[in-house]
Amino acid sequence: MTTTESDVLPNGLTIEQARQESARAYELDRKHVFHSWAAQATLKPMVISAAQGSQVWDGEGTRYLDFSSQLIYTNIGHQHPKVVAAIQEQAAKLCTVAPQFVNDARSEAARLIASHTPGDLDHVFFTNGGADAVEHAVRMARLHTGRYKVLARYRSYHGGTQTAINLTGDPRRWPNDTATAGVTHFFGPFLYRSQFHATTEEEECQRALEHLEQTIAFEGPETIAAIILESIPGTAGIMVPPPGYLAGVRELCDRHGIVYIADEVMAGFGRSGKWFSVDHFDVTPDLMTFAKGVNSGYVPLGGVAISQPIYDTFAQRAYPGGLTYSGHPLATAAAVATITAMEDEGVVENAARIGEDVLGPGLRELAAKHPSVGEVRGLGVFWAVEMVSNPQTREPLAPYGGGSEGMNAFVAASKSNGLLSAVNYNRLHMVPPCTVADDEVREALGMLDSALDVADGYVS
Amino acid sequence: MTTTESDVLPNGLTIEQARQESARAYELDRKHVFHSWAAQATLKPMVISAAQGSQVWDGEGTRYLDFSSQLIYTNIGHQHPKVVAAIQEQAAKLCTVAPQFVNDARSEAARLIASHTPGDLDHVFFTNGGADAVEHAVRMARLHTGRYKVLARYRSYHGGTQTAINLTGDPRRWPNDTATAGVTHFFGPFLYRSQFHATTEEEECQRALEHLEQTIAFEGPETIAAIILESIPGTAGIMVPPPGYLAGVRELCDRHGIVYIADEVMAGFGRSGKWFSVDHFDVTPDLMTFAKGVNSGYVPLGGVAISQPIYDTFAQRAYPGGLTYSGHPLATAAAVATITAMEDEGVVENAARIGEDVLGPGLRELAAKHPSVGEVRGLGVFWAVEMVSNPQTREPLAPYGGGSEGMNAFVAASKSNGLLSAVNYNRLHMVPPCTVADDEVREALGMLDSALDVADGYVS
Ligand SMILES: Cc1ncc(COP(=O)(O)O)c(C=O)c1O
Ligand SMILES: Cc1ncc(COP(=O)(O)O)c(C=O)c1O
Repeated sequence: MTTTESDVLPNGLTIEQARQESARAYELDRKHVFHSWAAQATLKPMVISAAQGSQVWDGEGTRYLDFSSQLIYTNIGHQHPKVVAAIQEQAAKLCTVAPQFVNDARSEAARLIASHTPGDLDHVFFTNGGADAVEHAVRMARLHTGRYKVLARYRSYHGGTQTAINLTGDPRRWPNDTATAGVTHFFGPFLYRSQFHATTEEEECQRALEHLEQTIAFEGPETIAAIILESIPGTAGIMVPPPGYLAGVRELCDRHGIVYIADEVMAGFGRSGKWFSVDHFDVTPDLMTFAKGVNSGYVPLGGVAISQPIYDTFAQRAYPGGLTYSGHPLATAAAVATITAMEDEGVVENAARIGEDVLGPGLRELAAKHPSVGEVRGLGVFWAVEMVSNPQTREPLAPYGGGSEGMNAFVAASKSNGLLSAVNYNRLHMVPPCTVADDEVREALGMLDSALDVADGYVS
Repeated sequence: MTTTESDVLPNGLTIEQARQESARAYELDRKHVFHSWAAQATLKPMVISAAQGSQVWDGEGTRYLDFSSQLIYTNIGHQHPKVVAAIQEQAAKLCTVAPQFVNDARSEAARLIASHTPGDLDHVFFTNGGADAVEHAVRMARLHTGRYKVLARYRSYHGGTQTAINLTGDPRRWPNDTATAGVTHFFGPFLYRSQFHATTEEEECQRALEHLEQTIAFEGPETIAAIILESIPGTAGIMVPPPGYLAGVRELCDRHGIVYIADEVMAGFGRSGKWFSVDHFDVTPDLMTFAKGVNSGYVPLGGVAISQPIYDTFAQRAYPGGLTYSGHPLATAAAVATITAMEDEGVVENAARIGEDVLGPGLRELAAKHPSVGEVRGLGVFWAVEMVSNPQTREPLAPYGGGSEGMNAFVAASKSNGLLSAVNYNRLHMVPPCTVADDEVREALGMLDSALDVADGYVS
């Protein structure tokens, strides 16, 4: 476990002050805070009392490398001085304005976002986060097409509100899918655990497209409003689609008048080493949802980038949806500062380089060395380590939708080495900020290496 | 039209600077921003370039009294110095932390909110706004009861996501209700336009409860997870329920094991002259949704306050819902500062006094003077002016779900007098911040008075 050299945390608190503040915060949390995705009485949540760049400090002043980017959203790192300053300035100028008015921060954020989105996605509807972006994108698609059904992928996550959770193709949908009317799931390409008995990426791609084509045919093309796809599915396993897959989806959508919604909430804004993950595949969706990286979550913000034909649908006819904080000045001012800093400081380029030169090669080395690693995959600062208990059979170290002793021991070891990562069933995701330094990546790889020794003990 | 005395707006911009900034903001807005609830090409949105307390300035430097509180949420007024400072300090300290960790701002906000909620509503699940608060409250109720149906009121608004818009009992649901499975609407008490042929508040109350009881009986009590009710329906007309109505609803819920969800998104946090609107009626719901006033919308925030039995349901069993920005530090720090300032400065008491002594009596005088006013009703800083074209037949000045020449002329006149208010079909809502000054109310009443002369011209 690493601790700070000095007695003062980056936010100016002494370790003793941080301890006192944390003890009180923890007590009140357990008394009054209801947490997401958890059995409340069984929680022992970690306190975060300070953060800077790719590092965080807990309530004891212990330092961790934040290779989780919290929930994979602090793409610009913690406490970027330009974004902090922009929030402070906007707060002094004008904290809030309702959506029906014009505000300069919102206008400028929309311009900047549109300058990076592909093709004709030049209009932006702002939301508070990813789930409501998905909800509004689906509504736009339904009203634009006059159709109702939406196709979504197994192994996907689209958010926690009713429509978004029902589109989600992971086990978190199960306790919620009381109202799946109109949602159909299909399988996407994932060669390591191929649904299609494929042995090459080309075969996986072609068979996955055939499967989607058949699903469309059997659901009825004229009943389908939209296909929603994470360009690179994130939480479900960072499965970079094979070349040609997204272009094939685009072509199927065009052929049948189906709206193609790219969910870039996690994969967008630099995470994959490009501004958006669709950019790797030269594809322009009809609607693109975003959140997280747009302002690194410094202020809640999400949105939908909209193509011209869908904009035109709502040019003379009212769009029947909205929310109180659409285009919030503080949130959009943070987006303006974040995107500008990303442009000026080569943040997206850094993410690409880290993936190619440091994190990718380092993870491949660990995979070669440790039998508990079935596969590593990813790009940019978006990497999955797929853990197995048997490298031959590819038996996952924890079952789909569950946990295991081996996975728990592995994750506990990596955390006690000072590494925070994202964990999902049998996978550990290495997803640091796009601004991460080479040294930090090397330090994290070292922490992971010795944790993998623990995991190797569970390989049969 | 009132203009500023000096050439400098409260945010330090000169009027000339504000004009330039506004022109650019307007141009980019029309190019890149997609607005809520609107036909995009027909919009000519007003620019807001500065705001302070109960006043805002447009792009020309013209001052308006903001008796809309934007979308009825700046309960503490614009740019309250303590809330601005708290946001700036929290930004410097720690902008963001994911929900799975503990954060001191979040813990303290939960404690403060719980100290004001009625009864055993002592745990808080934080969301980004009102709609997702409703989505999560409904999920909690469904999982707690194991039942699916939710009863909601006609004349209500609950938000723009799928479940929330389907619960909504106003025309904004119509283009969206492709998935009403499990939602049933009933009529609530509203004596001025009684569904129940009642002539007194007592009769209206008793008949409305009978109607709800019958609806429950015919839907099947054991199929109903929840009844959701705005404690005082806001957007739909600020209809204060008669004494006994909410207690009757509580009793029906208890009798049938139905979860009572009070939606306090608009009516809560001082708007009605009490911390929550249920407090007028001595009723404790099982779940209470909030947003808006909790931090006056300075940073997007909403949430659900949860009773002990429902908390217990998720003590050992995971709650299957969440969102990336649940309990966001910047948003909850703004809530801590807002609630503390409201306590220290008697903001809720001011709202109550304004309603009783200034705004209520002033509106009643105008109602007596102008035939176009069918009724005024409300309390605190939460007032509706119900406009009619015929005071005898109570024919509304604009039809339900639509607009009219008379209503447009009336609203345009009040705006050109310098008054911003909230408008919904045939109603104008006078909903200033809870901090509004007596003089500002008098000034606004004067502006309204002369606009009502215009409306009177449309009375037959
Ligand atoms: C791809 C994707 N879509 C949507 C969401 C939902 O975003 P939020 O949690 O902000 O509602 C997430 C969150 O992780 C996501 O990864
Ligand atoms: C009573 C009520 N519930 C829910 C909402 C939805 O809140 P939001 O717009 O923050 O999603 C509103 C918004 O006006 C409301 O008035």
